[in-house]
Amino acid sequence: MTPRQLHRLGATAMALVLSVTAVHAEDIAEYMDFFEPLPFLPPIPADNTMTPEKIELGKMLFFEPRISASGVISCATCHNPALGWADRIPRAVGHGGQVGERNTPTVLNSGFLGAQFWDGREPDLEGQALGPIQADIEMNMTLAEAIERLKEFEIYHEHFAAAFPDDADPINQGNVALAIATFERTLNTPNSPLDRFLQGDVQAMTEPQVAGMKLFVDAGCVACHNGPALTDSNYHRFELPGSKDEGRFLVTGDEADMFAFRTPTLRNVAVTYPYFNNGSVPDLEGAVQLMGQQMLGQDFSDEELDSLVAFMHALTGEMPDLVIPALP
Amino acid sequence: MTPRQLHRLGATAMALVLSVTAVHAEDIAEYMDFFEPLPFLPPIPADNTMTPEKIELGKMLFFEPRISASGVISCATCHNPALGWADRIPRAVGHGGQVGERNTPTVLNSGFLGAQFWDGREPDLEGQALGPIQADIEMNMTLAEAIERLKEFEIYHEHFAAAFPDDADPINQGNVALAIATFERTLNTPNSPLDRFLQGDVQAMTEPQVAGMKLFVDAGCVACHNGPALTDSNYHRFELPGSKDEGRFLVTGDEADMFAFRTPTLRNVAVTYPYFNNGSVPDLEGAVQLMGQQMLGQDFSDEELDSLVAFMHALTGEMPDLVIPALP
Repeated sequence: MTPRQLHRLGATAMALVLSVTAVHAEDIAEYMDFFEPLPFLPPIPADNTMTPEKIELGKMLFFEPRISASGVISCATCHNPALGWADRIPRAVGHGGQVGERNTPTVLNSGFLGAQFWDGREPDLEGQALGPIQADIEMNMTLAEAIERLKEFEIYHEHFAAAFPDDADPINQGNVALAIATFERTLNTPNSPLDRFLQGDVQAMTEPQVAGMKLFVDAGCVACHNGPALTDSNYHRFELPGSKDEGRFLVTGDEADMFAFRTPTLRNVAVTYPYFNNGSVPDLEGAVQLMGQQMLGQDFSDEELDSLVAFMHALTGEMPDLVIPALP
Repeated sequence: MTPRQLHRLGATAMALVLSVTAVHAEDIAEYMDFFEPLPFLPPIPADNTMTPEKIELGKMLFFEPRISASGVISCATCHNPALGWADRIPRAVGHGGQVGERNTPTVLNSGFLGAQFWDGREPDLEGQALGPIQADIEMNMTLAEAIERLKEFEIYHEHFAAAFPDDADPINQGNVALAIATFERTLNTPNSPLDRFLQGDVQAMTEPQVAGMKLFVDAGCVACHNGPALTDSNYHRFELPGSKDEGRFLVTGDEADMFAFRTPTLRNVAVTYPYFNNGSVPDLEGAVQLMGQQMLGQDFSDEELDSLVAFMHALTGEMPDLVIPALP
């Protein structure tokens, strides 16, 4: 082969490589269009601006067990920072060791959800925050009692005044909700492998994860799991083996909502097991297979399952930096 | 006044100031001799060397609720980092909401104590660590079950192997105790106002605190509350109104130990209320007064109480930096 022939061969090979890469990139780009990197913060409601004082107060309240009847249960008991801000048991354990009906959803990225609780009975984090304090199987305290307890501590008077400077009597249940919700909106997990991949780091996901991303789109998972938190925040009927929970129907009374649950976020799904409304499915393989069967009417092959589960692991982001507050 | 006279007057005044300061410093030095700054670390046992791997594993285990029967109670539930590593309720609440007989002692600086538990029934942190896991009113789990749970997680196999590289089968109860105790020995609170004062920062304590320090010596409190943790780690009979707890007698069966309890550390006493073996005294004023009456046979005046309580606040050190571990 002459040097000229060699040069030609090299040029042809290079053109081939470039053309294959371009096709591959275009191919991937189509899939990437279905996803969004997680923003640093979720939407902040106009009537609950985010301030450092409110975040700090909300953090204190989130870790405050004295607003439970036993004095030992706080939001952080079930939404445990060491456990993906959930509890990793099937159903929540609360006051007096009582076991609830449902699995604890993670607080992580919950500001991106269009509704709160499995049945979406509260529209926002402000609405959610006061529920567990009052639930007799969770913290089991009236809001009036909780407010009285907080008022016993001088430091709460200071922190509520700093967080709500326009209020004459700032320690009240509305402000408890505003502060906790504000803190929760800081608990986001950016820079997951998917996020980094979407932002141009093609090495951020493994080959099986990229294959899983494609299958996630092609199989139709993305129809419900989309947007920054990978949920449509909508309700879908789902027959979970062993569950008699009527779900959204209990909120609306509408037969169409029977057994329907809000699509959960898939962000950090690998570290927020077990799965579904009663936590009865312990692992991702089982959860993905069940979703395929129930929602898409298909059984995934072992290889497909592996890819999808690999992709689920690409949704684990950076956990929030947290300095445990010193409570009074 | 001539410039020369003025100079002489100045020199005299300066000599007077120096002389007063010297007398004052000598006076204070005598009192300071009764106290020791808190070392950065307590004594490390020869048979449980401190390594970063053991500290990290111990931290994970300390926050691990899956070694409780309910799955939600960990060491950190009662030894809550947000609450001075104790719980700030009179008596501990554990499994199923059961209330124990005794107040939760803080873990802070517990490596400096000569014995563990209110009755000193364990000599060291290694001996203490496994107690609450098994107590039916605390975490309510057998050690065999706890070990089985830990073995379910691959990451614990890695961490135990890293912490105990010479062990063929490192996930065992002995190593759980060694790791938790090692982590606990890092939970110290140096640089309290007293520590800084003892190290030469004369501004570190307020005047009432210095007065309280002197009274603490003069009244005799220091007879039992001495050493780096301000405890002799010895047992003293104490009749706490309303308590029928027989204390050390339950361990030794010796009548001389009836109603005797181990002298608690006074480090961080201001942030580890309520006080005494059943937590029945809510505030420092009450606790100091009761100690004066019971141990020293004297009633402190209001002014004396104020000084002593001010000094108690000078014993609050810097809380440990803590990054919550990510559990599997």
